Amino acid sequence: MSFQLSEITYKVPVELFIQNRERLVQSARQNLGKEKSENSVIVLQGGIEKNRYNTDAEDLPFRQESYFFWTFGVHESEFWGVIDVSTGKSTLFAPRLDPSYAIWDGKINNEEFFKNKYCVDEVIFNDKNTTISEYLKTQRTKNVYLLRADNTDSGNILEEPKLTGSESFNVDTKFLYPIIAELRVIKTEHEIGVMRYASKIASEAHRAAMKNVRPGNFEYQMESLFRHTSYFHGGCRHLAYTCISASGCNSSILHYGHANAPNDKQIKDGDMCLFDMGPEYNCYASDITTSFPCNGKFTDKQKVVYNAVLAANLEVLKQAKPGVRWTDMHLLAEKIILEHLKTAGLIVGDVNEAVAARVGAIFMPHGLGHLIGLDVHDCGGYLGDATPRSTEPGLKSLRTTRTLKENMVITIEPGCYFIDFLIDQALADPVKSKFLVKSEIDKYRGSGGVRIEDDVVIRAAGNENLSDLPRTVEEIESFMNKGDEWTDSKIAQRVKDHLKI
Amino acid sequence: MSFQLSEITYKVPVELFIQNRERLVQSARQNLGKEKSENSVIVLQGGIEKNRYNTDAEDLPFRQESYFFWTFGVHESEFWGVIDVSTGKSTLFAPRLDPSYAIWDGKINNEEFFKNKYCVDEVIFNDKNTTISEYLKTQRTKNVYLLRADNTDSGNILEEPKLTGSESFNVDTKFLYPIIAELRVIKTEHEIGVMRYASKIASEAHRAAMKNVRPGNFEYQMESLFRHTSYFHGGCRHLAYTCISASGCNSSILHYGHANAPNDKQIKDGDMCLFDMGPEYNCYASDITTSFPCNGKFTDKQKVVYNAVLAANLEVLKQAKPGVRWTDMHLLAEKIILEHLKTAGLIVGDVNEAVAARVGAIFMPHGLGHLIGLDVHDCGGYLGDATPRSTEPGLKSLRTTRTLKENMVITIEPGCYFIDFLIDQALADPVKSKFLVKSEIDKYRGSGGVRIEDDVVIRAAGNENLSDLPRTVEEIESFMNKGDEWTDSKIAQRVKDHLKI
Repeated sequence: MSFQLSEITYKVPVELFIQNRERLVQSARQNLGKEKSENSVIVLQGGIEKNRYNTDAEDLPFRQESYFFWTFGVHESEFWGVIDVSTGKSTLFAPRLDPSYAIWDGKINNEEFFKNKYCVDEVIFNDKNTTISEYLKTQRTKNVYLLRADNTDSGNILEEPKLTGSESFNVDTKFLYPIIAELRVIKTEHEIGVMRYASKIASEAHRAAMKNVRPGNFEYQMESLFRHTSYFHGGCRHLAYTCISASGCNSSILHYGHANAPNDKQIKDGDMCLFDMGPEYNCYASDITTSFPCNGKFTDKQKVVYNAVLAANLEVLKQAKPGVRWTDMHLLAEKIILEHLKTAGLIVGDVNEAVAARVGAIFMPHGLGHLIGLDVHDCGGYLGDATPRSTEPGLKSLRTTRTLKENMVITIEPGCYFIDFLIDQALADPVKSKFLVKSEIDKYRGSGGVRIEDDVVIRAAGNENLSDLPRTVEEIESFMNKGDEWTDSKIAQRVKDHLKI
Repeated sequence: MSFQLSEITYKVPVELFIQNRERLVQSARQNLGKEKSENSVIVLQGGIEKNRYNTDAEDLPFRQESYFFWTFGVHESEFWGVIDVSTGKSTLFAPRLDPSYAIWDGKINNEEFFKNKYCVDEVIFNDKNTTISEYLKTQRTKNVYLLRADNTDSGNILEEPKLTGSESFNVDTKFLYPIIAELRVIKTEHEIGVMRYASKIASEAHRAAMKNVRPGNFEYQMESLFRHTSYFHGGCRHLAYTCISASGCNSSILHYGHANAPNDKQIKDGDMCLFDMGPEYNCYASDITTSFPCNGKFTDKQKVVYNAVLAANLEVLKQAKPGVRWTDMHLLAEKIILEHLKTAGLIVGDVNEAVAARVGAIFMPHGLGHLIGLDVHDCGGYLGDATPRSTEPGLKSLRTTRTLKENMVITIEPGCYFIDFLIDQALADPVKSKFLVKSEIDKYRGSGGVRIEDDVVIRAAGNENLSDLPRTVEEIESFMNKGDEWTDSKIAQRVKDHLKI
């Protein structure tokens, strides 16, 4: 067993990480060939706990770096890991803790403890900064592969670790990233098990918000309830990303909820809520969005927008099969939404021509969805058979352009928003404005937007939707208005049922 | 108005920061003299939002750097601020946002918005990396004072900002730190107003935990409830530090609750709880510890330890007056605790001799308390008339050795713990072991410890305790066992009463 916060939360099997390491070794061998695999090691550095600015405090506990976590499942900070490519032998280097740790931080564990916990072949305490390179010499290491990882969403780079004594080896920092990132793209069933749980907890926390929200609440209060439900019932201490707890006009601000727009509006009767929130468990992310009227009853205009987005969500869920290119799914979602808007009189003209003129991106400026795993926007979106990032509105925001493969986990999150900035820009553009019915669109201005987001496992035999929420207008209205009390014991029972405990 | 999350949370007056800047200018002028104040400016850089490792996500929203916040009250990232020492003119440099911000992040505000919000003399958008130095040249600036700040708790340094074009000026990085840190040590009434609110919210969240905890709960569930109460009712999105939600034996691990010891034990009937948790509001910290039996009823042994600590807490609260050295308060607390342990038969001999032999530090290895403000362990503990850090057990952990001054805010947090590592070490030491009654102490091993922590404003006319909690054995038992429901509406009303709204 690698991790279980408590007996009422999901038990993560240590086999998850054993299998990840096996896959890594296998892939490295395949790509290096037999000869280059000899005397070759992969060296990874785990994350280091940081304080807030120059202080000694932090309001968020340490969270492991994702590549290191994928490989070893280690939650503690300041670890290193070594894997021998030809033998598969795995070694963890743990920090040597000062005896005063026992007073301030808890029990000091020995090598055996970590060896059993993480099922590696060997654990060595990192007593001096040459411990690892000296160890590598005893193993007759020639080639050292270090991870230097791009991120195609942020543009940030995870720098290769500073391995003291690395000048004794042939060091490569390019080989590892595409290999390990590609392995992270395709999830094992062990990984999907954890993600199924994270999405289940997210769904329960969204249900709690839907049941409890009332006009007059403040948006941040629903963020608070969501976080509490995720942690209290699901053991999820960390969120996968900052909560977007938007209502009314704010639901058209795509990344609302950050420090400058901190979910601080009062929710007014008649507002739609757009809650895009997801916790993580054992570092695996969930990412779910619900959209619903705060008072439990859709207006006709709210139904128009909601049903447009729901139709797109459901059709993509059906058509997103292995071999299908994600870009095509994005365009499909746009088309369905535009068809609905045409029926409702907001746009005119040929829908295919409107898609080609990028009218869809006026109403859905973000990408249809993204790979998800240890990071909410997971790595590898522009590896494999990805086409280069587009420069077109909407399409340029896609976090992947790959064709889908079995056991990818991806979010399906079409949306439709009324963003003055984009509508005004489009009305001033003759190519786009000819499709727009200004007088009708104006009626929707200020109403915000709708997004419906699920976490989905791509499977040849039919996709698995990890989210578990009322989604149709009827389901939502029925769920919100049924007078049953949504108690802690009820939520606890629902989590127990999921875990079958 | 500088900040108010919503109409049900505390309204922070912008005068707080105007006054801070006035104090800063006055102090700088006094220390520089009239002549050197001419053509001199203070340049401060605010914090920059960071992502988790190389990703584009973060589960904790941006939190401003404390020195910058103290000076300008700015919550947004990527700001700079300039203050002219001789004229007091204050200028904020705001980041120029890309137009796409309006789609993803919200409204783009203009100079006037920020000028009104933060009541500075001028706001300039930072269009290029030489914007600030070019501005300074127009002001005929000769001397630039940059902040390079030590931290005497962490040893970390806040590096001086990299000001492009600074080679045109005389740059000083030493002057500012002791000046501004000393100003932060003495709180204004505006600051105390915010801290009073933060401690009130912490107290309410602690009460919620005391009312709701039951044997069988997991420690992290009480952390979750605490966080939720602080945010839902108090608008506190951030914690001032990682929650210590300890029970039973874990309550003797002083910094329990971090990633390697994540509040994951089940709370058992008979356990004492030690909850050291505090949120922050408008970046001002609270830091409160409650200790109580999870089942609402103290055992005789629990009473011995609890009453020893409470007596120390109350006596320090009484004696900690302006002019008193904090080190003496630490020794006073030790003495009172040892007297109680002697009465209960755990130690023998002369208590003053025991204190001199550092027996107190066996049971209370941490310092009695610390300055608190924008950081939970606030700056300046070893400035002013502080004596050098001791090398003696217990005393070496003091975060300040200063004499107290009016309007310092400091935590009073005596504790008494049964830590095997320290007890065994002391029993093996003839100087210490002669005071110890092993057979009696052994009866307390494994029971954990007690800490009672308040946030206190030092005042000549009598200290102000910002915490508001049941503290005696009788008060706690009565509070926990009274059958009244502790509902959300009750908590909301208590916060309203505090705010008088």
